[in-house]
Amino acid sequence: MADSFYVGVDLGGTNIKAGVLDADAKVLCSLSVPTEVPKGRDAVVANIVVSAQQAIAQAGVNRAKVAGIGIGSPGPLSHRKGLVINPGNLPCLKDVPLRQIVTERTGIQSTLENDANAAAFGEYWAGAGKGVSDLVMFTLGTGVGGGVIVAGRLLRGFFENGAELGHIVVQPGGRKCSCGQLGCVEAYSSAYFLARVAEEMIRAGEASSLKARVAAGEMLMAEHIVEAAKAGDALAMKVWDQACYYLGVAIVNMQHVTNPERVVLAGGLIAAGDYLLDRVRKYAKQISWTLLDDLPEIRIAALGNDAGFIGAAGCAWEADRTGDW
Amino acid sequence: MADSFYVGVDLGGTNIKAGVLDADAKVLCSLSVPTEVPKGRDAVVANIVVSAQQAIAQAGVNRAKVAGIGIGSPGPLSHRKGLVINPGNLPCLKDVPLRQIVTERTGIQSTLENDANAAAFGEYWAGAGKGVSDLVMFTLGTGVGGGVIVAGRLLRGFFENGAELGHIVVQPGGRKCSCGQLGCVEAYSSAYFLARVAEEMIRAGEASSLKARVAAGEMLMAEHIVEAAKAGDALAMKVWDQACYYLGVAIVNMQHVTNPERVVLAGGLIAAGDYLLDRVRKYAKQISWTLLDDLPEIRIAALGNDAGFIGAAGCAWEADRTGDW
Repeated sequence: MADSFYVGVDLGGTNIKAGVLDADAKVLCSLSVPTEVPKGRDAVVANIVVSAQQAIAQAGVNRAKVAGIGIGSPGPLSHRKGLVINPGNLPCLKDVPLRQIVTERTGIQSTLENDANAAAFGEYWAGAGKGVSDLVMFTLGTGVGGGVIVAGRLLRGFFENGAELGHIVVQPGGRKCSCGQLGCVEAYSSAYFLARVAEEMIRAGEASSLKARVAAGEMLMAEHIVEAAKAGDALAMKVWDQACYYLGVAIVNMQHVTNPERVVLAGGLIAAGDYLLDRVRKYAKQISWTLLDDLPEIRIAALGNDAGFIGAAGCAWEADRTGDW
Repeated sequence: MADSFYVGVDLGGTNIKAGVLDADAKVLCSLSVPTEVPKGRDAVVANIVVSAQQAIAQAGVNRAKVAGIGIGSPGPLSHRKGLVINPGNLPCLKDVPLRQIVTERTGIQSTLENDANAAAFGEYWAGAGKGVSDLVMFTLGTGVGGGVIVAGRLLRGFFENGAELGHIVVQPGGRKCSCGQLGCVEAYSSAYFLARVAEEMIRAGEASSLKARVAAGEMLMAEHIVEAAKAGDALAMKVWDQACYYLGVAIVNMQHVTNPERVVLAGGLIAAGDYLLDRVRKYAKQISWTLLDDLPEIRIAALGNDAGFIGAAGCAWEADRTGDW
């Protein structure tokens, strides 16, 4: 194990990233190949296998020392069954037993994990959560993804849909989320909904420096909100504050549920840096009890877009350690 | 292990319940002794030890076959350190290393667990959660307590304050909870706050069949609300529905975090039976997404007041199995 190597594959709708790491989470190499979704299931599966094979070749390690391949894939999926179920942006992989296929074609034991869980495991193993046993990660992208480590293990849940932290309800009866629920943290604090909230307020007649963009039919982006808020636009500041506030509510809820030592923020919105971190910390502190001194430390993720393949390799490392492939 | 016995001790502010169970969670005997808080630390500790000794004697089992004593105590406490920290209703036990004391005085390896966690473990091991790997318990008493089992293990958290489910925020900026936070589920769905909500509404002038009680200076109890609601009192029905609704929000949040197979409801409010269960199920279903079919089954607890000592014995059984005392 200590002298073994692990391959991580991060399966995305456009590209597949792959890399080889050693047991100390050191990246020996990484590469990217196109997913080629339009070519269909067989091509995508072949590209996954090729990305792993190429990474091993590129790392120049002894193939016999490669102890596992971890595949991070969009969910829903079953880690236990090694089965991709119905990934939104990869419909051609519906019901594909990816773990078994990759294991058979490479001759290397493989494991399948949902991409948000894999990324959280990456930060835990090699990034902003290194040395921490209990970690929570929120990925603030188009949606809000989540990953949770409890006592050093990924929390998966009975139905294997655990850590869907974007769908924590932070405002009952609130904004409709893309999942159909009302008032999910995703409906306020994701890059997509942040911009929608601002657009709706502007369309409803509120003043903003972003009005011209909306009037011109341009679709607002999260970056526009952050930029306008930093420049002092009152509406943008309100929307940004709301996003940080509700994320604070979700963090306090996690404080009382899995009681982590650290919360890591990842995804596109972390480009805002301290403008995000300072506010989220402020609100979490303001919302949380003071009965006990157990508010987790909140940090920005360290691995960027590499968290996916690093974490997938970490899942293989973890499976090798526990026997739970 | 299979032919071992386990002692469970449930430490309360008034009484200490103790019992002996076999490895199949069968209760061989149980008893209760007064805690005698006014007599102070040494007397309380002596009573804990005596309750365990008496239970072993009463069960008539071979003492050499008693593999462990589990002590469920009010928190906050440290399972890892075996230390009671600062229990609200047992101030004399502040900073008492109870695990070590009980182990030394009985000569039997002991383990210390927070009482809410122990009760949840009891339902998991021998009650309404039997056969379930991922369980969440809400105890609807004066406050709202919680316990969470993830993949067969108690969730404790880094600061050992995990599963404080009563303090999940279900209404940001809402009612002030006894913990200082605003909008905790406890501030709406506990027996205590349920009655306070009704009282406040009546004092504010709303009509209710409970008005006379409040006018007479009587302190409303949760039973009064349930009784009045069942009899058709509109205010009581509204308050009861609100309690069930917010519990539904907390359950949906747990669905997306630890993703349990089953949620068990315990505590005084379960006396309302189906009048509780039907509404909580209705609201959880109404609030939850329909994207995935992973809403946990919601059930009433099976062990009543015995969950504490049964669960404490279960914690000893679990410690014996895992070596984590």
